[in-house]
Amino acid sequence: MRIAQVAPLAESVPPKLYGGTERVVATLTDELVQQGHEVTLFASGDSETRATLVAPCREALRLAASADPLAAHLLMIELVSHRAHEFDVVHFHVAPLHFSMARRMTTPHVTTLHGRLDLPDITTLYEEFDDVPLISVSDAQRAPLPRQNWVGTVYHGLPNGELHFSHGPGKYLAFLGRIAREKRVDRAIAIAKACEWPLKIAAKVDPSDVQYFKAEIEPLLDHPLIEFQGEIGESEKSDFLGQASALLFPIDWPEPFGLVMIEAFACGTPVVAFRGGSVDEVIDHGVTGFAVDDLDAAIQATRCVHRLDRRACRDAFERRFTAARMASDYLQLYKQVGASTFEFAD
Amino acid sequence: MRIAQVAPLAESVPPKLYGGTERVVATLTDELVQQGHEVTLFASGDSETRATLVAPCREALRLAASADPLAAHLLMIELVSHRAHEFDVVHFHVAPLHFSMARRMTTPHVTTLHGRLDLPDITTLYEEFDDVPLISVSDAQRAPLPRQNWVGTVYHGLPNGELHFSHGPGKYLAFLGRIAREKRVDRAIAIAKACEWPLKIAAKVDPSDVQYFKAEIEPLLDHPLIEFQGEIGESEKSDFLGQASALLFPIDWPEPFGLVMIEAFACGTPVVAFRGGSVDEVIDHGVTGFAVDDLDAAIQATRCVHRLDRRACRDAFERRFTAARMASDYLQLYKQVGASTFEFAD
Repeated sequence: MRIAQVAPLAESVPPKLYGGTERVVATLTDELVQQGHEVTLFASGDSETRATLVAPCREALRLAASADPLAAHLLMIELVSHRAHEFDVVHFHVAPLHFSMARRMTTPHVTTLHGRLDLPDITTLYEEFDDVPLISVSDAQRAPLPRQNWVGTVYHGLPNGELHFSHGPGKYLAFLGRIAREKRVDRAIAIAKACEWPLKIAAKVDPSDVQYFKAEIEPLLDHPLIEFQGEIGESEKSDFLGQASALLFPIDWPEPFGLVMIEAFACGTPVVAFRGGSVDEVIDHGVTGFAVDDLDAAIQATRCVHRLDRRACRDAFERRFTAARMASDYLQLYKQVGASTFEFAD
Repeated sequence: MRIAQVAPLAESVPPKLYGGTERVVATLTDELVQQGHEVTLFASGDSETRATLVAPCREALRLAASADPLAAHLLMIELVSHRAHEFDVVHFHVAPLHFSMARRMTTPHVTTLHGRLDLPDITTLYEEFDDVPLISVSDAQRAPLPRQNWVGTVYHGLPNGELHFSHGPGKYLAFLGRIAREKRVDRAIAIAKACEWPLKIAAKVDPSDVQYFKAEIEPLLDHPLIEFQGEIGESEKSDFLGQASALLFPIDWPEPFGLVMIEAFACGTPVVAFRGGSVDEVIDHGVTGFAVDDLDAAIQATRCVHRLDRRACRDAFERRFTAARMASDYLQLYKQVGASTFEFAD
């Protein structure tokens, strides 16, 4: 198939540092090329891809500190509309910016929603665009907007070879990601202290979260069991997760997907997560981890993680969360919207 | 004519507090209704207008602290596209968000650009949309983007009765607006101290400018000649400007228009301004004020303002900067784009 992928421009594809959406787009794009498809990637000029790159801006906008990130996105969407006839399907990752244009496009298209959808400000907009074919990254993500034109759920996937299985047994609990109020690293610290197990925290602190970090998290770090490592690179992840006995994912928001959970599985590390968003869909409770509702249950679950089979975690990754499985799911939906577009055209 | 006005949603129309664009849209809309036109205003639900209001959101987004201001704007643009056939012309004030939709619209349309256009991030976007008919608020504003489809310059106007002529002679120098680096209130203070005249400053400080204000401006305020009043309301403006001997407008950026200059003229108060952006077009040098290039010239000019005829300032306002003149200029351009659209359609 001739496929266009339209990525956000905040980060390069893949991102130099943090950036979940751009990383998923990178994985999907390269996997589609690998499978023999002709892929054009609309993304920032510093992206690295096996597809044909079309860049509406030279550099990713966040690191370039662009004064007007909207301008480059609007330009990109217009470039896509000019070239839409060259593709069998256009896959957007920039909702809702392109909805108006996409609705007027005759080329089949789908849009993956990467963010949370429970914000009151977006409801009326989505009601207006209830015909645009959407893909969710978990079934839970759809709940606030049940009346959209949902064509499928596709769970994220990761390249097979990047993260390595580790037999364990793990030496510490791990927290990986961002320090932000909804990520609840304070709960991870409380769990570790109650279990009397070491906790290693590898997390970046965004400028907008520095105040929260200093006021509420830093005071909790001064404890012999707690080690704060700051942000770590992609190359360090495999060791960081693989050496852990469990990943703690004590979120307090409707996480649309939660890539770090499947990164842990790839390393054979089970996950103890608070229920919310995708958690119940991603974790096979009692097999690849535990989904819990409160701190007591989390502590109890964490004390039991050594009973879980690390091989089962890796198996779940290989069965459900690889790049190949993600690409094959998307291809099926590309064909589906293609078929229904041609039906309408008749 | 059946006219649609499409306003930004950050502030209500007119704005409750500061908000130049929304104030101009309010003035233009009410004046067009007054002149017998059938006007539909797309604006936030808390707007007050003599036109028919279509509100894509209940409240203005800035005061409601909207988490996603883009959503309401995208919705509004789509609502406009659905109803475009009801109008003879659609007048947008939300560039560049609507460019893609407007290009695909068969109804004649114009877009007033209210902001500065010298930011490198927007150049490529405007190159792509070089067919969209644009109106500048000063000729100077166009300079960075000479190859757009400029159809005219329309200077802003104010309602005739809101600000009252004051014979003077003025008792102090006035600075009115925002405390921001590019507005250079520090220069106004230096001018007042050099002339040994009192300076009254009526200005708001945005959250983003608090640090600049505290570090660089507050230390300059502790002086018997300088009085800082904070933000003032619309109803206080006439007295504040009318009692002044001159408005100081010592800007350090390409001001696209500078409403406060014509507010001063309406009160009979001349303006001493640093050259930049629209200044040379708005001020009739030696008649309604002085346009200068450096601090020495500003001090010398300020010492001479009593020689200017306050009546000439009010006359310039009545001749060049009323709502009626603005509406009549716009109507002419509406007819012009209407005629050329029908030409193309033939």
